[in-house]
Amino acid sequence: MRNGRRDGELVVVRGDGRVCAPASRIAPTLQAALDDWERAEPGLRELAGELGRGAVHGEPVEPSRFQAPLPRAYEWIDGSAYINHIVLVRRARGAEPPATLRTDPLVYQGGSGVLLGPTDDLRLVDPAHGLDFESEIALILGDVPLGVKPADAGRHVRLVTVVNDVTLRNLVPDELGKGFGFFVSKPATAFAPFAVTPDELGDAWRDGRVYLRLRTSLNGKLVGDPEAGPEMHFSFFELLAHVTRTRALTAGTILGSGTVSNEDPARGVSCLAERRMRETIAQGKPVTPFLVAGDHVEIELVDRAGRSVCGRISQKVVAR
Amino acid sequence: MRNGRRDGELVVVRGDGRVCAPASRIAPTLQAALDDWERAEPGLRELAGELGRGAVHGEPVEPSRFQAPLPRAYEWIDGSAYINHIVLVRRARGAEPPATLRTDPLVYQGGSGVLLGPTDDLRLVDPAHGLDFESEIALILGDVPLGVKPADAGRHVRLVTVVNDVTLRNLVPDELGKGFGFFVSKPATAFAPFAVTPDELGDAWRDGRVYLRLRTSLNGKLVGDPEAGPEMHFSFFELLAHVTRTRALTAGTILGSGTVSNEDPARGVSCLAERRMRETIAQGKPVTPFLVAGDHVEIELVDRAGRSVCGRISQKVVAR
Repeated sequence: MRNGRRDGELVVVRGDGRVCAPASRIAPTLQAALDDWERAEPGLRELAGELGRGAVHGEPVEPSRFQAPLPRAYEWIDGSAYINHIVLVRRARGAEPPATLRTDPLVYQGGSGVLLGPTDDLRLVDPAHGLDFESEIALILGDVPLGVKPADAGRHVRLVTVVNDVTLRNLVPDELGKGFGFFVSKPATAFAPFAVTPDELGDAWRDGRVYLRLRTSLNGKLVGDPEAGPEMHFSFFELLAHVTRTRALTAGTILGSGTVSNEDPARGVSCLAERRMRETIAQGKPVTPFLVAGDHVEIELVDRAGRSVCGRISQKVVAR
Repeated sequence: MRNGRRDGELVVVRGDGRVCAPASRIAPTLQAALDDWERAEPGLRELAGELGRGAVHGEPVEPSRFQAPLPRAYEWIDGSAYINHIVLVRRARGAEPPATLRTDPLVYQGGSGVLLGPTDDLRLVDPAHGLDFESEIALILGDVPLGVKPADAGRHVRLVTVVNDVTLRNLVPDELGKGFGFFVSKPATAFAPFAVTPDELGDAWRDGRVYLRLRTSLNGKLVGDPEAGPEMHFSFFELLAHVTRTRALTAGTILGSGTVSNEDPARGVSCLAERRMRETIAQGKPVTPFLVAGDHVEIELVDRAGRSVCGRISQKVVAR
């Protein structure tokens, strides 16, 4: 929660997302808790229990007072684990999917120094950039050694959260054409207000995947609610094995799933690029524009009971 | 300096690099000083002055006790500003330089969660990976707003240091072929023990370039001492304008120059890939192997008086 400092103050949020209590006596910030998880976790769990049964009262959750769980992080690594997304988006920019599409995970190193909170504005630096959202699930990790195996990856997962991996579509082709990956085409990424321990997901967390729907709305209208589990080709555990092939990761590293995407068009989209490609296939050209000033993007992960698991990303697009 | 904690302890080093004094009463870590530079800088300069004139005694510098200036950083962004390096290395892997080689800077987002200290071993996970060093200069920045102009970039530069941007050459072609840039081909980057304020460089720091030689030795033999200034096509100020086109940077972000490289073969190389390409041009095939276990890489920036400006990177290659 915002407290005027760079990393904010750590709070524990009640299961219904309505009430929170300061946790700074256990660890001042989430990064501090992750740095010393074995020591911090029991106290955080105890406080969550007290909050759940009313032994601690806490205060009402006000989303605009929340920053990203880690407002600055040591690493933000994003996979692209949904094959349907890769195929549609590459088709949209006239590029072929890599030959190793189903055997070698696609990941990119994102900028992690400035991460947006759930209600921070999306700044449209230039409308010609083609501003787009990308709704994703992400893990926050503990220390991960070099060369972790998928079967051992689960023990390094600390928290699950939701991400808006903002992309400037019209800057992507030239930038990837230079060969060094994304940079100016990826402005600051935004995060849901809360991050939950995997056990909070119950059996919806299994095999390194989250078997829940990720809902995205644009200007109050649902644009997609794909299932995040079944079509995640590479699990988070496989992504984690891939990204530690040649180096270790430090506590607080964030690992994203890539844009959640289902083959079934009825499940809609988690980014406008996919919708535009579906329109092109159906009608010969895209109809939906990229984001413009005044647009409102909302993203949330919902459980089987309809509960918002990590709270809602709710961002307005503003002209620079 | 190592103190058993993740970020170590901030020390101030005397101009000759031989003696240092703890600065933790001013700021516990370098990141803490960068977070609050306006407050920390005067005290750090005062301590440096006292150390210089013997009013504070300090203790002898022992390089192995030094970590990277930032053992974990919020962002590590590496440019590739030396045209000669781009042309030679792309030729080595049969790829064309981008059409915008001289107009649009090449940068990549590096992993910053685990940064190696100056004497940390280089781990050879698999000899087939083609382990190579890359000697570079890097800046450590303060907070940088979105859209900084080259003429205003200098005010955001806090420190200058030296980097070994380790690369696994044989993993590069397939990884860049996937389109998302480097990841497993870039293991942890290593840093010189010290970082200096730009004024320590005198008139060798001008126009956003460092006009000094960067010396690299392999197994005690000099392999290159190129001039870092004249052939840096995009200055650090131009790189900084490029990387803030669509987002802001947080204090402690590290910005690299790319492998320092001169057209004149007499100046040698700052990476083995360049030497192998020069051998291929001259003799039809590369002769120099990539690094093997037991090899010893040393990198340092030397001033006109022969002084090592940031101390020496001195790393042994060890089998995993």
